[in-house]
Amino acid sequence: MSAFDDLLAFQRQTEALSSVAERLGWDQETVMPRGATEQRAEETAAMEAVLHERRTDPRVGEWLDQAVPEDEEDARIIELIARDHQRATRIPARLATELAKQTSLAQSIWAEARANDAPQDFLPALNDILMLKREEAAALADGGDLYDALLDDYEPGATQAQIAALFDAMRPRLVALRDDVLGAEFQPQPLKGDFPQETQLRLARTCATAFGYDWSRGRLDLAVHPFSSGRWQDSRITTRVVETDPFNCLYSTIHEVGHSSYELGIDSDYAFTPLGRGVSMGAHESQSRIYENQIGRGRAFSGWLYQRMSDAFDGLSVPDAEAFYATVNRVTPGYIRTEADEVQYNLHVMLRFDLERDLIAGRLDVENLVEAWNARFLKDFGVAVDRPAHGVLQDVHWAVGLFGYFPTYALGNVYAGCLNAAMRQAVPDLDRFLAQGDAGPAVEWLRENVQRHGGLYPPRDLIERATGAPVSEEPLLDYLEEKFAGIYRL
Amino acid sequence: MSAFDDLLAFQRQTEALSSVAERLGWDQETVMPRGATEQRAEETAAMEAVLHERRTDPRVGEWLDQAVPEDEEDARIIELIARDHQRATRIPARLATELAKQTSLAQSIWAEARANDAPQDFLPALNDILMLKREEAAALADGGDLYDALLDDYEPGATQAQIAALFDAMRPRLVALRDDVLGAEFQPQPLKGDFPQETQLRLARTCATAFGYDWSRGRLDLAVHPFSSGRWQDSRITTRVVETDPFNCLYSTIHEVGHSSYELGIDSDYAFTPLGRGVSMGAHESQSRIYENQIGRGRAFSGWLYQRMSDAFDGLSVPDAEAFYATVNRVTPGYIRTEADEVQYNLHVMLRFDLERDLIAGRLDVENLVEAWNARFLKDFGVAVDRPAHGVLQDVHWAVGLFGYFPTYALGNVYAGCLNAAMRQAVPDLDRFLAQGDAGPAVEWLRENVQRHGGLYPPRDLIERATGAPVSEEPLLDYLEEKFAGIYRL
Repeated sequence: MSAFDDLLAFQRQTEALSSVAERLGWDQETVMPRGATEQRAEETAAMEAVLHERRTDPRVGEWLDQAVPEDEEDARIIELIARDHQRATRIPARLATELAKQTSLAQSIWAEARANDAPQDFLPALNDILMLKREEAAALADGGDLYDALLDDYEPGATQAQIAALFDAMRPRLVALRDDVLGAEFQPQPLKGDFPQETQLRLARTCATAFGYDWSRGRLDLAVHPFSSGRWQDSRITTRVVETDPFNCLYSTIHEVGHSSYELGIDSDYAFTPLGRGVSMGAHESQSRIYENQIGRGRAFSGWLYQRMSDAFDGLSVPDAEAFYATVNRVTPGYIRTEADEVQYNLHVMLRFDLERDLIAGRLDVENLVEAWNARFLKDFGVAVDRPAHGVLQDVHWAVGLFGYFPTYALGNVYAGCLNAAMRQAVPDLDRFLAQGDAGPAVEWLRENVQRHGGLYPPRDLIERATGAPVSEEPLLDYLEEKFAGIYRL
Repeated sequence: MSAFDDLLAFQRQTEALSSVAERLGWDQETVMPRGATEQRAEETAAMEAVLHERRTDPRVGEWLDQAVPEDEEDARIIELIARDHQRATRIPARLATELAKQTSLAQSIWAEARANDAPQDFLPALNDILMLKREEAAALADGGDLYDALLDDYEPGATQAQIAALFDAMRPRLVALRDDVLGAEFQPQPLKGDFPQETQLRLARTCATAFGYDWSRGRLDLAVHPFSSGRWQDSRITTRVVETDPFNCLYSTIHEVGHSSYELGIDSDYAFTPLGRGVSMGAHESQSRIYENQIGRGRAFSGWLYQRMSDAFDGLSVPDAEAFYATVNRVTPGYIRTEADEVQYNLHVMLRFDLERDLIAGRLDVENLVEAWNARFLKDFGVAVDRPAHGVLQDVHWAVGLFGYFPTYALGNVYAGCLNAAMRQAVPDLDRFLAQGDAGPAVEWLRENVQRHGGLYPPRDLIERATGAPVSEEPLLDYLEEKFAGIYRL
């Protein structure tokens, strides 16, 4: 066995264990009995300790020193293992275990605080996590920028300066579009009515199938905050049901199918290697967002969905497919990021990006977070937050230690904009299929150009290879302006 | 930190990891997508490798040498860790990993072969597992008896000679009772009708609640072969539904509640120590069987169940509670162990005990197993096996490597017989509560005298402390003869 073979065999087991840890997270959010919180925290911490020990195993360092790559794939595998090894060796085992335990415990605390609209019940736990994350960031940054060190875990190579510049370029056009749209004379109708849970879930399954979701390698469950989880032969999705708003369930499902498709679409030769996972959260989000928005909220697919919903629900309040297309793209003032329309979504991200940069830098204390959130929300959206569950408590991310994660949502939108422009050019008759509820040709293009590569190329490279052009915010903004000018008759 | 503290801290993490591995098994049998078999096999093998490495960790040996117990509990913890350590150090890591992987793969192969009535599709996998188990037994036995070495994993301290002697003492009285009952003039009516799955599951939940199952620390799902899984704050049960036979679902549920109650009833101070688990499979089965049979199929509880079933299902084919009591205890020729009545159940176990002893000893080859099973079944039960799914393919145990496990079912029945006699004496008005669907006082007595102790006492000690008498087959046989003489008017 060569050093590379040893490294690969060891890594294979590490990947399998990390997949187990991820499955444990799925279990906790979907099926776990509510009284098992402490037990799960210990289990999660034990798994994290094992993974940490493996990532920092001195043998990995030795194998890395000796491993000789034979091709591009080997070289990238070595690069990715080395990256994980370096990050892990910088984090003390005690800190890793403590973070796993605290974030596991905090999930239930967050869920309860959110249900009770009681931020004070959650903020102490959040403060503990923030302190641990700052400690982690300091260890990782090795003198460099704290926030960049965290960001690098989700979007390798990205920096807050680069993202801030991107956001600065996007904001004026997004704000102008939002103001035009909200001030327009024509306003789409909201969908009104009562939509039973069972019917929503049945339609959600139909939508997932339309996007080619492989049910033999996945399943759909309910969760407080929809997510997808798992890889290779087992990538599961979750959704939630709001009985007055079926779009919440349906588009969450399509979104999560995008994430799972990415994992399930990776070349199976890469399974349980570092190439066998999506390359970054931004790349991941590019898939979920293009499924959800550029495809799922497009005129062609929404026309098909209109028929399915008319069949499933008696007396839909929207008269025809064209009105329905406007309804699914309706822009309204709203508090919730995951329910935000395409125009305002990135503005929600920008708010979180700035607040979490302040938290990590120590410019903002957790005790002032509610106030800071509410003030910023009023400034950016012109509306006062009505209750904490609609404000600072709406997202699970900080409760599970995901600082530096939010901007990858907006990066994903930017990537999705780039990919959509290229895909429409490459597959000009896409809408003909989408109008029949068949997203197959779109999924196929994305699988061929993005998904199958897994971790092989760094995120920006991946998008640029797929599109043949540098990553830019322009395709997304052009697409949004054209789409919403059409809908709102601007 | 003393050596004992170090040992305990390390063990705590090992217990948490072992709990994760068990949860993975639950996932595989209940919710896992069918296409994830290979992935799960690798995940299970990786977990098993980690656990094996921890159990054989040289530091454990050093801590064990130096650990000084302060009380009875410490001493037992040291004894149990030492036992695990010794067993694990005797099994090569390669063998442990291979066994975990093969048994994970074989579960799906078995399930498919069973569904298709195709033993030839399963026997090659079974042969692989048998060869690995014989290798494992040889490593564990260290020159001693192979079967005893395997048995010791499930019922520490028991030997096949002891069990064979017990079975020899039981067989004549069981056979005589069986023959009397099958030849009796009075024969209870079978339950006829069609019993929808949803109603069965609702009643199953009602039964679980009657036995005090703690839903905040558990859940009920469907599985091919019912089982319970997990400990401390999270012990889940499964059941199956046969639409023509609701007793299958209901009594499987009560049985599994017995197992889960044991785990959930252990002193929470013992959580994630070796005392925090049921002490043996026989002790475990004593709880599941006493819940299911001595309590669940007693006249008092079945009278309550009759009312619940009459309310749930239109036109029950049985006219009154007394006839229903005979029906739930109906003795008929049958192929399936898990559906067997109390009189014949142990005869099913004896068949498996003898066959698996022959397999392990090399006196019987897997290629002749179907024939051997069928011949023995005809001899013991006077009926020819009609299809492999009703014969050698009916149980999952061998597919998952559980050789030496079957006799613990009969030991559990014997223990349950002892416990029932003592419990009825201690709580003479039990039936008054059971007739109201309240098994609380029975559960309380079992919790106090058996369950809360977890692994503190060896199995026979545990039962003898609870009953104040030596373990014997007599209380069980006395109970069976009296009960069935009454029902069958012998």
